[in-house]
Amino acid sequence: MLIVVRCAKVPTLALCAVLAPALAAGADWSEQQLATAGALRDRALSGTTAYEHVTSLVTEVGPRSAGSSGDAAAVRWALNKLGSLGFSQVRSQDVLVPRWVRGHAEVTLAGPNAQSLVAVALGGSVGTSDEGVEAQVLEVASLDALNALPATTVGGKIVFINQRMERTRDGAGYGATVRNRAEGPSAAGHLGAAALLIRSVGTSDQRHGHTGSLNYRVDAPRIPALALSNPDADQLARWLKPGKPVRVRVKSTARELPSSWSANVIGEIPGSERPNEVVLLGAHLDSWDLGQGAIDDGAGVAIVIEAARLIGRLERKPARTVRVVLFANEEFGLSGAKEYARLVGDAAARHVLAVEADLGAGAVWRIQSKVAPDAVPAVDAIREALKPLALEAGNNEARGGSDLRPLHALGVPILDLSQDATNYFDVHHTVNDTLLQIDPKTLNQVVAAYAVTAYLAASKNGDFGRVATEEKEQR
Amino acid sequence: MLIVVRCAKVPTLALCAVLAPALAAGADWSEQQLATAGALRDRALSGTTAYEHVTSLVTEVGPRSAGSSGDAAAVRWALNKLGSLGFSQVRSQDVLVPRWVRGHAEVTLAGPNAQSLVAVALGGSVGTSDEGVEAQVLEVASLDALNALPATTVGGKIVFINQRMERTRDGAGYGATVRNRAEGPSAAGHLGAAALLIRSVGTSDQRHGHTGSLNYRVDAPRIPALALSNPDADQLARWLKPGKPVRVRVKSTARELPSSWSANVIGEIPGSERPNEVVLLGAHLDSWDLGQGAIDDGAGVAIVIEAARLIGRLERKPARTVRVVLFANEEFGLSGAKEYARLVGDAAARHVLAVEADLGAGAVWRIQSKVAPDAVPAVDAIREALKPLALEAGNNEARGGSDLRPLHALGVPILDLSQDATNYFDVHHTVNDTLLQIDPKTLNQVVAAYAVTAYLAASKNGDFGRVATEEKEQR
Repeated sequence: MLIVVRCAKVPTLALCAVLAPALAAGADWSEQQLATAGALRDRALSGTTAYEHVTSLVTEVGPRSAGSSGDAAAVRWALNKLGSLGFSQVRSQDVLVPRWVRGHAEVTLAGPNAQSLVAVALGGSVGTSDEGVEAQVLEVASLDALNALPATTVGGKIVFINQRMERTRDGAGYGATVRNRAEGPSAAGHLGAAALLIRSVGTSDQRHGHTGSLNYRVDAPRIPALALSNPDADQLARWLKPGKPVRVRVKSTARELPSSWSANVIGEIPGSERPNEVVLLGAHLDSWDLGQGAIDDGAGVAIVIEAARLIGRLERKPARTVRVVLFANEEFGLSGAKEYARLVGDAAARHVLAVEADLGAGAVWRIQSKVAPDAVPAVDAIREALKPLALEAGNNEARGGSDLRPLHALGVPILDLSQDATNYFDVHHTVNDTLLQIDPKTLNQVVAAYAVTAYLAASKNGDFGRVATEEKEQR
Repeated sequence: MLIVVRCAKVPTLALCAVLAPALAAGADWSEQQLATAGALRDRALSGTTAYEHVTSLVTEVGPRSAGSSGDAAAVRWALNKLGSLGFSQVRSQDVLVPRWVRGHAEVTLAGPNAQSLVAVALGGSVGTSDEGVEAQVLEVASLDALNALPATTVGGKIVFINQRMERTRDGAGYGATVRNRAEGPSAAGHLGAAALLIRSVGTSDQRHGHTGSLNYRVDAPRIPALALSNPDADQLARWLKPGKPVRVRVKSTARELPSSWSANVIGEIPGSERPNEVVLLGAHLDSWDLGQGAIDDGAGVAIVIEAARLIGRLERKPARTVRVVLFANEEFGLSGAKEYARLVGDAAARHVLAVEADLGAGAVWRIQSKVAPDAVPAVDAIREALKPLALEAGNNEARGGSDLRPLHALGVPILDLSQDATNYFDVHHTVNDTLLQIDPKTLNQVVAAYAVTAYLAASKNGDFGRVATEEKEQR
């Protein structure tokens, strides 16, 4: 088969327009499209402006918890950034967000030689009275161990869940311990505890508490809940080890404020043939208040903006639209993701694929999917197009970024570009989430993976089907 | 030459009593003594209780800045610990110490989207008024650059010395930047600055400010002075980069309190032949308030206690006394070291050698000395006795730990067992100075070096001479 190749000489991207015969029946992509994907990949690997985007966000905006002035600044930043980078249809989508402020927290080992422990209030937790709560500490090894105790044992105590998070590349250790943070406060409150302390859900041996949101149940008293830094959890455990009663005083001025307005920010690279079909690249614009929001999720914001921007600079755009969605308030209730899914209506069926970058700035090492079974070979083909990255093949049970859940529940296929999370949870949700935690070169590798994935998904002859979500299956 | 060796079988330490001929004329040690040194070294390398000592101090006492309740608890802890470990002549030496409390510090990038910067007050710094100080920031590259500016440029500004500390094994980067902290406040105050911010004198990329003491000059106004964490120094530098005026607000409630009492704590392994001749092993009992005082200087306390304890368990004690001195208030003015030297009187001449452990918990990699020239070969012989540690030979210009300065000024020879400081200044003077920063096995290596050094110094046939100190030379 003769294929005539004509290469355009452009300074930054060598693109070849292939005068090929019509796409073979059943093939997902033409040779030309695969060549373009390869060029896009190599272009990204050779250097991108992703690090500049995250530097700009971290410097000009910094922390941006939902509803804060930083959050509002982030929305303005995103609109300006997408506009100045030449995105189309740049717009915001108003989102009502809950508003919680951390205030100041103090945890003190009580006694003749009182010692301060470094701790942070959990997101959404109630504060204490001015004098704080002082009580004896009850250490438990896990949430399950707590739930197995009678109220007579727990009542009036400050519960301390001392479960260590394991360091893993896929972040599985987080899933295994995050329940302590989410469900622990109401579990302890339900049993009459005065307050809850957890060992931070994080792997750092540095003295930073890891925050994150909790879920108070309606049937349990709301008690103050804080995360001790790992070295401080060790210290408390050493005090408890001899078996004598240990008392701790907890003070927190955390409190809820009235709900406030934030926004999803959206920009597009319009499709050349089927612009109303969408490949969604997501990240979240909000961050926790403690750090600069560099790895969570400034990096993700930079990755998806840059991946789409590179696609936008191609001579021949993909058939479908590549839509960047920067979600409001992922951290404290997925407000933006829920609102996006609520407003999407019939267009959900035209969301061909969604991918979210929300696992920091580590290198991509695996592709996983949740697509129709007959589209799995296409996922393999994307992996093949990224061959120099030596990605592992995952399964077809991907769960996607948190912001994709509401959309996924509408049947939208998703893909995970799994980033190396070995060190991510050293920094996640801490004051230490700063630009110094990002390696610019590694960020380029991630951009390459996102750009190629989005380009190929938006160019694909045929879609990725629809998926039955777990919730639907459970019904 | 026939040497009859008789080995005692003891459970923890195989010691050989050598029935040797009299020591050869001019030799520093007998074969028996060198064999004992080797056994002591191997005993320490195979495991010590040093980590238990520092764990006990960190857990039961924790932070212990001069004159604080923690400091008083540390003195009690040390007396009890030395007593329970079987030291002789356990005693304290009252020391009057200055008292400074940190209070609370806030540094904020002023503007429509105010951002908080992580900073810590420098030890001894004055506080601000309740509303704080707000002014334009003037960035300078070094203390010398600041000193070269006219008062008209500096007056009314908040000076920001943005000099990066270099990471080195010997800690030389500290010496090159610590002047910013010590002298910067008065240099800036003298030129009319409203406050001083310095990039932390530390190598960490974590979000911890590094504290440490400053020296206000009598001829300059006392201005508030704080250290930004390194990521926050970067953030401020990024704000300043475009060249537009940047304003910062500084609040600090740091203040001095009336002087208070602390104590040096002393314990001895009495010499078997010349007990009034002393080999001094020093460390300091106080710590900064922010961390747990694990590496600075809990590790040093544990090292010298354990080294002396191991010597105390020898069947044949060395001729001279090994004296452990845990100095009061190294961090904020060397109060304990000065008081020890003031009280030592004629006994200074009977201090044969002094060594201080105050560089964390890293492995020893070099021996340096400041001894009489004809004693340098004895230092080489100590290094030879530590051959498995592969120590480098330094020069004979050692400066010793800070606490040895006043004693050294009286002519007492000193030795440096240089510990690897590559990572020490990531943690030094920060909240992150916790037990997790200490590797127990490495600590054993350091104990081995101290135990062998002290044993051989205390056994040596002849002393290390007297030394002329720099101060004397300068006169």
